[in-house]
Amino acid sequence: MLSHRVKSPSAVWCLALLSASLLTAAPAASAPAPARTSTRPPVPLDVALRPAAERLIGAALASGHAYLRLSQLCDGIGHRLSGSPALERAVAWAAAAMREDGFERVHLQPVMVPRWVRGVERATMIEPGPQTLSILGLGRSIGTPPGGITAEVVAVDSFAHLDALPVGAVRGKIVLYDVPYTRYGETVRYRSQGANRAAARGAVAALVRSVGPVSLRTPHTGAMSPYVDSIPRIPAAAVAIEDATMMHRLLARGERVRVRLEMGADTLLDAPSHNVIGEIRGRERPDEVVVVGGHIDSWDVGAGAHDDGGGCVIAMESLRLMKQLGLRPRRTVRVVLWTNEENGLRGGNAYRDSLGALVAGHVAAIESDGGVERVVGFDVGVFRVGTDSTDAPRVAAATARLNAIAPLLSGLGADTIGPGGGGADIGPLMRKGVPGIAHRTTMEHYFDWHHTHSDMLDKVDPIELRKNVAALAVMVYALAEMPERLGDPPTVAARPGVAPRPAVGARP
Amino acid sequence: MLSHRVKSPSAVWCLALLSASLLTAAPAASAPAPARTSTRPPVPLDVALRPAAERLIGAALASGHAYLRLSQLCDGIGHRLSGSPALERAVAWAAAAMREDGFERVHLQPVMVPRWVRGVERATMIEPGPQTLSILGLGRSIGTPPGGITAEVVAVDSFAHLDALPVGAVRGKIVLYDVPYTRYGETVRYRSQGANRAAARGAVAALVRSVGPVSLRTPHTGAMSPYVDSIPRIPAAAVAIEDATMMHRLLARGERVRVRLEMGADTLLDAPSHNVIGEIRGRERPDEVVVVGGHIDSWDVGAGAHDDGGGCVIAMESLRLMKQLGLRPRRTVRVVLWTNEENGLRGGNAYRDSLGALVAGHVAAIESDGGVERVVGFDVGVFRVGTDSTDAPRVAAATARLNAIAPLLSGLGADTIGPGGGGADIGPLMRKGVPGIAHRTTMEHYFDWHHTHSDMLDKVDPIELRKNVAALAVMVYALAEMPERLGDPPTVAARPGVAPRPAVGARP
Repeated sequence: MLSHRVKSPSAVWCLALLSASLLTAAPAASAPAPARTSTRPPVPLDVALRPAAERLIGAALASGHAYLRLSQLCDGIGHRLSGSPALERAVAWAAAAMREDGFERVHLQPVMVPRWVRGVERATMIEPGPQTLSILGLGRSIGTPPGGITAEVVAVDSFAHLDALPVGAVRGKIVLYDVPYTRYGETVRYRSQGANRAAARGAVAALVRSVGPVSLRTPHTGAMSPYVDSIPRIPAAAVAIEDATMMHRLLARGERVRVRLEMGADTLLDAPSHNVIGEIRGRERPDEVVVVGGHIDSWDVGAGAHDDGGGCVIAMESLRLMKQLGLRPRRTVRVVLWTNEENGLRGGNAYRDSLGALVAGHVAAIESDGGVERVVGFDVGVFRVGTDSTDAPRVAAATARLNAIAPLLSGLGADTIGPGGGGADIGPLMRKGVPGIAHRTTMEHYFDWHHTHSDMLDKVDPIELRKNVAALAVMVYALAEMPERLGDPPTVAARPGVAPRPAVGARP
Repeated sequence: MLSHRVKSPSAVWCLALLSASLLTAAPAASAPAPARTSTRPPVPLDVALRPAAERLIGAALASGHAYLRLSQLCDGIGHRLSGSPALERAVAWAAAAMREDGFERVHLQPVMVPRWVRGVERATMIEPGPQTLSILGLGRSIGTPPGGITAEVVAVDSFAHLDALPVGAVRGKIVLYDVPYTRYGETVRYRSQGANRAAARGAVAALVRSVGPVSLRTPHTGAMSPYVDSIPRIPAAAVAIEDATMMHRLLARGERVRVRLEMGADTLLDAPSHNVIGEIRGRERPDEVVVVGGHIDSWDVGAGAHDDGGGCVIAMESLRLMKQLGLRPRRTVRVVLWTNEENGLRGGNAYRDSLGALVAGHVAAIESDGGVERVVGFDVGVFRVGTDSTDAPRVAAATARLNAIAPLLSGLGADTIGPGGGGADIGPLMRKGVPGIAHRTTMEHYFDWHHTHSDMLDKVDPIELRKNVAALAVMVYALAEMPERLGDPPTVAARPGVAPRPAVGARP
């Protein structure tokens, strides 16, 4: 009934509720399937999974629980940088929420995380001016000496521009990278490498135009690459687009621009943190695991609503709905809320390390870290073991199977299956050969808010949140319930005992 | 040649440049007109003024001088609240710019202005939380006692909601007005009256959701109404939409919300400031004056680019272009950059007071204080002397004459003439009977930036700035050159010596 793309949200809603109510009594493939005895062709995957999918979609769209959870996290706790008390409050909250929602084997996995602290920050253009600049120091940056750094500013619009300057042109100066935003993956290089590249030319500090498309005097923080031993360490901060373009205009018409930069940033001793883990054990193959999650840490501004409170909550909610509906899939479904994605990836690495040989049981890893805008589908990636390079045959096989699931998602508009999936926290699993899947949204405004003071709950549309939950719940359930492991050839008939048993009333 | 609305900016540009080059040699009504001797029907106003208008438009669109001026003000000086050193730097800069551009009788008119200082501001939601709130104190607000005010928050969504609360419901509390933005004129009431209305119910502070349609954690400051002697004085601040909605959500689900508000705001002794005045004396009727301007002060955040650096610069540029082109209109054209529009209107009142009986010579007053977005036209208003009530016959007469000028503006898309014109600084003149005209733009994003840290020069489109200059220059020139005074009946033939002499080549 949801096999056609329905444009109207209210139509989706009505169909979903109707489906849910009609099918509440139908057992949804919850009993072990008998050995395959006939020669009938295998039931298509979407047909076999449709009854459960309809119930998950109906329940997701009818529930305000995800929004309540996200409010508890974002409004009640707020931002939560690695090493902060707020992050451990969020960890405790998540574990309590999982227990309250009936998850199994809820536990905290200890992880030592970096502890970068921002301290007091102030930047002033003292000539001409004075004018206060809107900045946010970059994660990993050192601070300035007491009293700050006061120096002339030299603006460049690219690394090539910097490299083309005469020897000594930026020595003792502050380099301003005024690079207009194109795509995040392109422009973020200046945030990552700006300090080291400027320091290598003798600069005393780096200011990086915020990596984002729009600004209401909105600086975007984020991690810079680690310092390199062979290059002096200099402090680096993001400046709002307004400030970067202002200084660039002044310089372009021959004015001398001098800035005083004061940053109290410091890196303290590693601090204890935790991955938060809970699951629903598989009814048939509990040692095969579909892992799904987001990262529980955030930057130390805003409330991490899109990055990545939303991802955490929709992952948690996917399992809560299965519990609520009595859907226990064939394999184990596990939520992991990774810690320290933003400035260390310690959580993702620690989870992988904790598995040892058990990583072979991981059928798929799904990360939701693209915000909670309108869901459009899922991207898939598979690496050759021990590498970051794509395993094309397995990607093709996995894509084919996700496309077989996709009709279940068409009513949500979430049926686009693409290549290149993955995620920072599941990267370590993917390098062990686990297929990685990214939950994909339009990301229309994601980089407006990303790593800023503005990433707050008002930016999350409650209805889009529900649709994201619905799509992810169906995908997770499907991966845990389908006969074969994702990425294996779909040779259903060759493997006795794993054929799907269609639920009552689900035949077309 | 610009009489049809041309959609393409490049087409406008080419036509304007062509017109300007073709007509450079044509004397544009710069000599006194001879007494009218024939019985031919009067030449239509737009035909008579077309040669000069074309030259002004061409010169405005070809020049980057306005943007340079606006950069000098916004980038070089920045924001400039009444009583600040920056405002007096801006005053000195404006006078120097006028002299450099050849204005006549450039002078500073002393005005004592209020001196409200913001001081240190900090607001923290301490329960639940802690979370730092994004605030900007409101102009005229008192500060908090040392250590701040810590109190529970009560949210209301309207004054009616506040009034309907039980007696004592907000006593000792902080009232949060979480009122969604509709139109500025509607929603700004909460900024103006919120503190007094809350204090009358016993509140200890007021937080007002920022008056604006969008937010990237963007508080909007602005003046509140003066305190009333019969009501206790309480501090008031704007909070960003994100924070207002966050606290409201928490309260709506039963959480207790407590905030600590610290504000160092104070009102000091009045400080000296100045209106900046310069003019081009009229060639025939120097005692009849068309006054045009904006306000040189701004709030103490951002750079006052749209509010109202842009208005000041396009007014200045209108006269500079006349000077450059050798256009000396019949009447005097005068730029006044009023001081203290934002929190006192002392400049507008002082200018009116300085005129005495000379106000009768003021033919029209034009204020540009709607930002520098795409220009659409001009709105006109005329009050009955000594009142704020519309003088309908004079408005009709003035509108008819502006509509006769409008064909000259059609190529700029600036030919919409509407009612209700005026402006804060020209209000005192209008109450003396002077017709008031507001320069009108689309204001599509004006209230996104208004009174925020983000009102910076990057928000000004340099080409739209030029088109605004062109439109205002034509309007000012037309009002100073047309035969009769605006608002008088257009009885051209009855007044010898004032008929327009069409310039060579201007007949259709």
